[in-house]
Amino acid sequence: MRATVVVRPKPGILDPQGEAVRDSLSKLGFPVAGARVGRIVELELEASELASARAQVERMCEQLLANPLIESYEIEVETVR
Amino acid sequence: MRATVVVRPKPGILDPQGEAVRDSLSKLGFPVAGARVGRIVELELEASELASARAQVERMCEQLLANPLIESYEIEVETVR
Repeated sequence: MRATVVVRPKPGILDPQGEAVRDSLSKLGFPVAGARVGRIVELELEASELASARAQVERMCEQLLANPLIESYEIEVETVR
Repeated sequence: MRATVVVRPKPGILDPQGEAVRDSLSKLGFPVAGARVGRIVELELEASELASARAQVERMCEQLLANPLIESYEIEVETVR
């Protein structure tokens, strides 16, 4: 089973990494109105059921992968043949 | 125009962040066979044409957003109404 977790700074929350990217792109001559930087975590799971895998990844996000105060996350789980 | 860039460590390249995530998840009681960590960069562009926006983001990746020696990247560009 493979899971993909995308963790993003919540809207309205300051994103210093995104601001650094925007500023650096401007200096390089790329006009960018906004930039936000998040993380993508790809996991190989040993779970065999889609629903239980998703529930497990949900707990991983709460406990380690995201900071729910300032970040939102999206989970996708897929079976690998 | 909105662009999403996903930057991942290339297969076979050591991913210390992914290893730290896998180890921490194991310690928390989550059996995970593998973990890879990448970045997702979301950009608001001022370009008005899809093709030129994509070419621009390609150059951004080469010059700033990714390290082509050790990272691969995927670009998605979409028009925002």
